[in-house]
Amino acid sequence: MSKHVVIREIARAEPALVEALRGYGVATVHEAQGRAGLLAAYMRPICRGAAIAGPAVTVLVPPGDNWMIHVAVEVCRPGDVLVVAPSSPCSDGYFGDLLATSLRARGIKSLIIDAGIRDAATLAQMQFPVWSKSIWAQGTVKASLGSVNVPIICAGQRVEPGDVIVADDDGVVAVNRADALKVAEAARQRAGSEEEKRKRLAGGELGLDLYGMREKLVALGLEYR
Amino acid sequence: MSKHVVIREIARAEPALVEALRGYGVATVHEAQGRAGLLAAYMRPICRGAAIAGPAVTVLVPPGDNWMIHVAVEVCRPGDVLVVAPSSPCSDGYFGDLLATSLRARGIKSLIIDAGIRDAATLAQMQFPVWSKSIWAQGTVKASLGSVNVPIICAGQRVEPGDVIVADDDGVVAVNRADALKVAEAARQRAGSEEEKRKRLAGGELGLDLYGMREKLVALGLEYR
Amino acid sequence: MSKHVVIREIARAEPALVEALRGYGVATVHEAQGRAGLLAAYMRPICRGAAIAGPAVTVLVPPGDNWMIHVAVEVCRPGDVLVVAPSSPCSDGYFGDLLATSLRARGIKSLIIDAGIRDAATLAQMQFPVWSKSIWAQGTVKASLGSVNVPIICAGQRVEPGDVIVADDDGVVAVNRADALKVAEAARQRAGSEEEKRKRLAGGELGLDLYGMREKLVALGLEYR
Amino acid sequence: MSKHVVIREIARAEPALVEALRGYGVATVHEAQGRAGLLAAYMRPICRGAAIAGPAVTVLVPPGDNWMIHVAVEVCRPGDVLVVAPSSPCSDGYFGDLLATSLRARGIKSLIIDAGIRDAATLAQMQFPVWSKSIWAQGTVKASLGSVNVPIICAGQRVEPGDVIVADDDGVVAVNRADALKVAEAARQRAGSEEEKRKRLAGGELGLDLYGMREKLVALGLEYR
Amino acid sequence: MSKHVVIREIARAEPALVEALRGYGVATVHEAQGRAGLLAAYMRPICRGAAIAGPAVTVLVPPGDNWMIHVAVEVCRPGDVLVVAPSSPCSDGYFGDLLATSLRARGIKSLIIDAGIRDAATLAQMQFPVWSKSIWAQGTVKASLGSVNVPIICAGQRVEPGDVIVADDDGVVAVNRADALKVAEAARQRAGSEEEKRKRLAGGELGLDLYGMREKLVALGLEYR
Amino acid sequence: MSKHVVIREIARAEPALVEALRGYGVATVHEAQGRAGLLAAYMRPICRGAAIAGPAVTVLVPPGDNWMIHVAVEVCRPGDVLVVAPSSPCSDGYFGDLLATSLRARGIKSLIIDAGIRDAATLAQMQFPVWSKSIWAQGTVKASLGSVNVPIICAGQRVEPGDVIVADDDGVVAVNRADALKVAEAARQRAGSEEEKRKRLAGGELGLDLYGMREKLVALGLEYR
Repeated sequence: MSKHVVIREIARAEPALVEALRGYGVATVHEAQGRAGLLAAYMRPICRGAAIAGPAVTVLVPPGDNWMIHVAVEVCRPGDVLVVAPSSPCSDGYFGDLLATSLRARGIKSLIIDAGIRDAATLAQMQFPVWSKSIWAQGTVKASLGSVNVPIICAGQRVEPGDVIVADDDGVVAVNRADALKVAEAARQRAGSEEEKRKRLAGGELGLDLYGMREKLVALGLEYR
Repeated sequence: MSKHVVIREIARAEPALVEALRGYGVATVHEAQGRAGLLAAYMRPICRGAAIAGPAVTVLVPPGDNWMIHVAVEVCRPGDVLVVAPSSPCSDGYFGDLLATSLRARGIKSLIIDAGIRDAATLAQMQFPVWSKSIWAQGTVKASLGSVNVPIICAGQRVEPGDVIVADDDGVVAVNRADALKVAEAARQRAGSEEEKRKRLAGGELGLDLYGMREKLVALGLEYR
Repeated sequence: MSKHVVIREIARAEPALVEALRGYGVATVHEAQGRAGLLAAYMRPICRGAAIAGPAVTVLVPPGDNWMIHVAVEVCRPGDVLVVAPSSPCSDGYFGDLLATSLRARGIKSLIIDAGIRDAATLAQMQFPVWSKSIWAQGTVKASLGSVNVPIICAGQRVEPGDVIVADDDGVVAVNRADALKVAEAARQRAGSEEEKRKRLAGGELGLDLYGMREKLVALGLEYR
Repeated sequence: MSKHVVIREIARAEPALVEALRGYGVATVHEAQGRAGLLAAYMRPICRGAAIAGPAVTVLVPPGDNWMIHVAVEVCRPGDVLVVAPSSPCSDGYFGDLLATSLRARGIKSLIIDAGIRDAATLAQMQFPVWSKSIWAQGTVKASLGSVNVPIICAGQRVEPGDVIVADDDGVVAVNRADALKVAEAARQRAGSEEEKRKRLAGGELGLDLYGMREKLVALGLEYR
Repeated sequence: MSKHVVIREIARAEPALVEALRGYGVATVHEAQGRAGLLAAYMRPICRGAAIAGPAVTVLVPPGDNWMIHVAVEVCRPGDVLVVAPSSPCSDGYFGDLLATSLRARGIKSLIIDAGIRDAATLAQMQFPVWSKSIWAQGTVKASLGSVNVPIICAGQRVEPGDVIVADDDGVVAVNRADALKVAEAARQRAGSEEEKRKRLAGGELGLDLYGMREKLVALGLEYR
Repeated sequence: MSKHVVIREIARAEPALVEALRGYGVATVHEAQGRAGLLAAYMRPICRGAAIAGPAVTVLVPPGDNWMIHVAVEVCRPGDVLVVAPSSPCSDGYFGDLLATSLRARGIKSLIIDAGIRDAATLAQMQFPVWSKSIWAQGTVKASLGSVNVPIICAGQRVEPGDVIVADDDGVVAVNRADALKVAEAARQRAGSEEEKRKRLAGGELGLDLYGMREKLVALGLEYR
């Protein structure tokens, strides 16, 4: 049964491993871990082109109340990614340039929030990458408690503290810390295999031949006219 | 009871006051007037980075019928912002580059519309800032009347003729003309106070300490582990 | 009654005609053919500023299954536009940079998909224009059949194989091949007439006068105050 | 600029007038006042078949916080309708059988809420009519202030304290108290005229003839084949 | 290219065939024609439990304008189903009890509309079955033309005049008139086969055994623990 | 990293405990476990008035593919509740009267599905309670694997195999099996306390007094006029 707690210490993946996952990108990492861990499609970057990864510090917030984000800043470490989810759906602007300034001063580089942010123009100037459900000036209060570093559901996906978050233009994916090494290895293999395919496809070879699909299509009854 | 009317003359706030509000931006103005006046989150700029303010000339239009926008052009003055709302939800493209050309020729600089626009690429080239619900080529007719300069509900917010409209990447906010001076003063104070906070947060001070939140969190039962 | 078929040969409009339609743009073409053929407003370009046209190769795909896109590549010709619709609503990432590489190698220049795509950053680098319902990394399978070059409903609009697809920042419109010449001619006239209007409006003339609207407004009972 | 206030006394329309409006129903009243005042289509009765009317006591609530509903109960009078709107969109269950019991004990007969309610089965047993955006068990807190009997925007419509609310299976409409007599008279005339038309249409006469539409259709260019 | 036309005469399927399709229901008919023809999931009956079928008389209407429904009544025959689609998305209340009275007087028994209806309580009393996108009192005008008995896209599905419409609690499906006999035969076979399966499943036999699925599941790698 | 697995044996809560939770209902159980565990508001009963509880057998299915539901039937026990979630959003009709017949034959009494169902009229006649995202005839295939009795995210909530599911008109809530006894005890206390409050409120006492709210409201600055 739920209480309002702040877990100060969480385990984090190795920085080199985090950086490797960032390099493979969301689509490849999502595939490499068996098509799991992807947040909902409505989570969009506020500026295109960013690509980040880092351990998740999770924050559960009440609707329209951003108090716990202030609490969370203290337990973050440089390189962390703040992952925020409201306890019921909300589009309010929980986060703006003051909080971004505070996060940046402590080395936190990105925010993932299943709600809204504001001061979008300033965040863009600061090059502070954010993935959110909305951009909206609507203010929030500081009246009710939530929790920090408990498992949360963010945009339809469970995120545990310390999960490696990878985010780019294709969305946001969470990788369980215990699986991160295996996922990175699978991603490496997938990326290598894709490079080979890319060359053959660029040369005009058809996917039908490259993947050997023709027989199965006929067997299932596809009819060419 | 409603009729179809055009009010030719409306009162407008002082240009210097309008410009001051533009400078503070949507989030600060929205806070400064007690978190009121903000249009819905789905109202988005068609190009990022614009920031405008001006007195509202309001237009109530039937669904799929843009006739009254032509009527409204005549009663606008240089610096005005056209604010358009359909009488029932609609995403059609009410507004394109011809209307933008006409508005610009008369000094009107921006459009806020709770519906769609089209000719988006040309509007971007013209640097004519628009906040809308959608971008869509769907054409409209000129068959039924609406009204100009009556109070309207635009994207879930009441807008009266002469309200000061402020719009930027965070959305669109309406300020009652009679409150504009007080709101600007409150915004000025808020902006000043934020500057001070920004410096302290940039130096690594925590919001928990800056805002003196620790005691209240403990009093409400937040548990650190 | 439906079967799974691939139609290898379709009729295509003349390249010069296709290029002419591209030049007029979606809003003008949509008007020129009597406000018909426009896909739903949620179909958005993944990068702003692109403007394409080409004959449609249509693909009907099961939800979450992109197999038939591979089948479709083989029957495309240089200059074609791939138009993909799922048999029930889906936002998964059916298409990424490998498929784009394959399409480009064969001269296909664009994709219209009533579903999601991924590898958005790479597609942007490749300058491969795509209009889609979503951008999302969610993977798809290759397990069930669909059809290629049958009439489909894509984003609320019927598209037949060989229809000329025109797409830009205002959305996507389909023109029946048999009507393409007449539509292009009507678009040419409309564009010419708009140029004349643009000049007069830029000079400050009111639409009320340019279009001769004043009498009809009064006749319908519009009241000026 | 907004503050948190409770207005104790509001003016109310005559009960006979309220009852007359209830009898005409939402569609007729909405037409009778010039197609104004209708709340958004997503406001649905939790049980079909109810039809109510009464003076509005308005309540502005924070997202996920139902405290002000308790405050509002005290200022209601028998026959009033409670109209509740959150300051930003929310689907939480603000209202359940305890609040309904309290309202009923004081003679308030209905609730209109642009948010969620819960204990739906018990409310149905109590025959307590509610129009809401959602039915959902999600709990709310009592931590932040709102206001009672100030003008609010509820489901896209402005509602002032004392407006006559009429609600049935077609939705919810607000009638300005000052207009209520005129609207009732217009509704009476409309209802009478509809009765006459109903008889003629039931006898097989066509609307085309009854309303004399044929000539205008031809004049506009409708082509019969 | 589109014009505003009314086609007076359309071909209709045999009443016995229509009645047979009604009996099989939407889910079975949809399967029997190869999972084609189903309207979008948001089309819902205004009262549960109705089940109808009939030839489609199609109506294309402008947003917020119900004039063409009056035009369509004249060309309907007893037993027809009116199928109405707006040229751009709209939720207004196009249809109420007067139009229902008129339709009933001429033997038309049902309405399918990709928009809203009103007078829902009266329609329920009349037992006039309607499938719609919304129930909403919002009024419409009679100012602009549309067409009657042209192919339309209704709720994401193409409907041609004379298609057999089947509707029940599971939604609405359109069957091409030329295919109706084959579809009815396929539906008959499917219904028979389902009856057999229903008995075996009711006796406790597992679908895994009844459909012989076990081997294929193992072959694909399903792992039991 | 995910694989396709079927877990045959899961732990289940005591039937008496399950029945107790059913009796308290969703709203009370949700509160009793600290406002956790509630599925999204769009999960609605296909017939109003049902109230069920039981241990969850979880099923993860691909979009548009209901094969794994057949697999899941075998591992269910009498009294279980089937909880089904697609791996990406889907509204197709995964479940109809044949599957309901099979489930009922084996003592399974209810279905929770974050997708669509069909044969709704027959399910209503069978009094087989279902909570779903949609009712839609759209058919599904049997081509790709998923998993049974793994943790899933269903309608924005994590559900583990063996969780106690409680569902009624207010929605669906999941209770962790290990917490079920404590939650039931907390629900019992809450229900008792509500009974007392209900009596006092029914007698006309105000919530303001019953809950002792007046002082705190004044302290926060609420202003009565």
